[in-house]
Amino acid sequence: MATLQNIKGFRDYLPKDALKRQVLISKISQLMAKFGFDPLETPTLEYAKTLAGKYGEEEKLIYKFTTPGGDEVALKYDQTVPLARVIAQYGPNGQQQLPIPFKRYQIQSAFRGENTQKGRYREFLQCDADIIGSNSLVADSEILALVYEIYREIGLEIIIKINDREELRDIPAKQLSSIDKLSKIGRDGVLNELGNRGLTTQDATKLLDRIANLKPSDNLTTIINFFTEMGYPKAALEFDPTLIRGLDYYTGLILEVVLKSDPNSSSLAGGGRWDKMIGQFTGKDLPAVGFAIGVDRTIEAMEEAGISDTKLTSAKVLVTVFSMELGQVSIETANKLRQSDINTELWLDAETKLDKQLKYADQKGISYVIIIGPEEVEKKMITLKDLKNNSQQTVSLIEAIQQLKP
Amino acid sequence: MATLQNIKGFRDYLPKDALKRQVLISKISQLMAKFGFDPLETPTLEYAKTLAGKYGEEEKLIYKFTTPGGDEVALKYDQTVPLARVIAQYGPNGQQQLPIPFKRYQIQSAFRGENTQKGRYREFLQCDADIIGSNSLVADSEILALVYEIYREIGLEIIIKINDREELRDIPAKQLSSIDKLSKIGRDGVLNELGNRGLTTQDATKLLDRIANLKPSDNLTTIINFFTEMGYPKAALEFDPTLIRGLDYYTGLILEVVLKSDPNSSSLAGGGRWDKMIGQFTGKDLPAVGFAIGVDRTIEAMEEAGISDTKLTSAKVLVTVFSMELGQVSIETANKLRQSDINTELWLDAETKLDKQLKYADQKGISYVIIIGPEEVEKKMITLKDLKNNSQQTVSLIEAIQQLKP
Repeated sequence: MATLQNIKGFRDYLPKDALKRQVLISKISQLMAKFGFDPLETPTLEYAKTLAGKYGEEEKLIYKFTTPGGDEVALKYDQTVPLARVIAQYGPNGQQQLPIPFKRYQIQSAFRGENTQKGRYREFLQCDADIIGSNSLVADSEILALVYEIYREIGLEIIIKINDREELRDIPAKQLSSIDKLSKIGRDGVLNELGNRGLTTQDATKLLDRIANLKPSDNLTTIINFFTEMGYPKAALEFDPTLIRGLDYYTGLILEVVLKSDPNSSSLAGGGRWDKMIGQFTGKDLPAVGFAIGVDRTIEAMEEAGISDTKLTSAKVLVTVFSMELGQVSIETANKLRQSDINTELWLDAETKLDKQLKYADQKGISYVIIIGPEEVEKKMITLKDLKNNSQQTVSLIEAIQQLKP
Repeated sequence: MATLQNIKGFRDYLPKDALKRQVLISKISQLMAKFGFDPLETPTLEYAKTLAGKYGEEEKLIYKFTTPGGDEVALKYDQTVPLARVIAQYGPNGQQQLPIPFKRYQIQSAFRGENTQKGRYREFLQCDADIIGSNSLVADSEILALVYEIYREIGLEIIIKINDREELRDIPAKQLSSIDKLSKIGRDGVLNELGNRGLTTQDATKLLDRIANLKPSDNLTTIINFFTEMGYPKAALEFDPTLIRGLDYYTGLILEVVLKSDPNSSSLAGGGRWDKMIGQFTGKDLPAVGFAIGVDRTIEAMEEAGISDTKLTSAKVLVTVFSMELGQVSIETANKLRQSDINTELWLDAETKLDKQLKYADQKGISYVIIIGPEEVEKKMITLKDLKNNSQQTVSLIEAIQQLKP
């Protein structure tokens, strides 16, 4: 039995990693609220037919099964199709429970039967935000502003690459998918691929030159202007006429977030305008613009930049127990610390040697330890040990609380 | 296509309900940290063999399937078995990444193929907290203290019913399951059932009388004493010798949280000491004590008590747009409000009539609306409309920010 483990491609988040996620999600949620976006949660499972025909060739990566009750179901592949289903069910053509524009965010797992050798996870957290029901370009700018604010709050220096997919509408999908590889395989590689797709070298060169020389469309210029009117720096946006972002899905603005220090590394977030998908569910188009943040990819970038929360545990202080007789004073001390909003762990077993208690605090990454032995009790003091600086002082509990307070 | 909907038994949480969850989860997480509990997240899927043989007759409610890669997997049935798997994998008998005691909480979905006619959901949120690796009775008391603090913070008046399962160890499981129904079918009903299980009326009466006259065990008395030493009122605990909480699982303290105003209604939370299950995975017992909160049941009780967060949306104010020409001043105003930490929605479309914008704010439940027309611009003022009191005033933006600030 001892060999039981997590499924390959599915991760456990032990406290250190779960805390990092929690901190990031909390920051994102606060900014979502500040921009008037509300949370939405949809089930882990959808009817398989809801997901069918939405993901092209990737459909084979969907986890599907039949329940004992005979329902054909699938694990969520993304948050977008469930959102479109929610709009169809509760929106203007459904139960009319959602005022339009509907600004929602969703931070939930998605599931894909990816090849795990690529270092990809089969369950991963997605953070999506979309504005449904507005074709105003102010909505596009607000999406850019929200992305900008999130990464500013996190402390990562980023560039938001933008383009207008509408400008590329006349180019066949397969050619676009080759051009999409420009940063990976280079100009010569793309020319070669386009050649294999039947273009003469001259036509392929012409196509690449045409795209490279594109200027921002009128819509894109307007979106950039609104963005600066909102008080954000134009330099945060970088027009990239070769930005493609996959096929068929987007209908206007597309965006991709990359690190300023490493603009060719894999993107942290991406999105754009997708005005045509909700109509696939309702028969009536409803415009939409939004983005998805790769939560784990963003945490990875924070770690690499040395700005991820390095807290190993929630507890700020461990109140040790000196002896059975002095157990009560430790219990009372822990209680007073908690009443002062200090995250406090109380050692539970009066029979454990103090050495072992200190070692535990150190292993767990708790910064401070409080020791209350007979001497301390007599003086009505406590000893506060700082494990990081390896220093200690004997002070009153009130002084200790002042020092530990958040 | 328009008939697509959520799967029966699986809920969508539209913003109003998602916000309620968010508020509750945030309160719970803060208290967990205050008591030194760290978050843990495990995957939605486990190997089917990990869950096999752990749930008795309920095993048939587990959702199982085989992945395209041939893995036999199952959707989580609870957080306890995944926790036991995590302890086996990373704990003292595994990779030794978890300092012991390991105090963790987990707020994640569980999946059960229940009969939905009972009003039960097939995916539901569980909030579990456990202390692994301590058999000190202080741990039991700390679990009670944490439960007490959570419901105090929420604002629900509760009673924590407690008992010691160890005192009932000699009573056969089937008899216990009859006695467990005491509050549902009454004393006569239980006597009748015990009769059907082969007990004479005399023996059945004797058994019920024995249980009814049980006094708190020594362990329970110690646990209660620690609880009061921690500063909590003894009256919050109610010794109930007929409290059983299912079969086989618990090895000491058991607890159940009920509303003070309606102690016979279904419980909001429950738990106890379970010292024997981790050994099923590792071959070596590791003591454990904890509880699980029914998140949705607790929100339901909050709604009934009229204390649930009635916020319909995150946004506190909608900045309307008077005309295309005045669009920029609305954009700037929204930006200033957000900089002052006020959750602000900006109307996106300059062509929408003001009436419709106000109606949207009202439908969505946004409390305040800001209007900036030509007169306001000339006076460098804004009109702040309070939709709840149906009042309005023309003030400077600085005054408005003062009023709206959280």
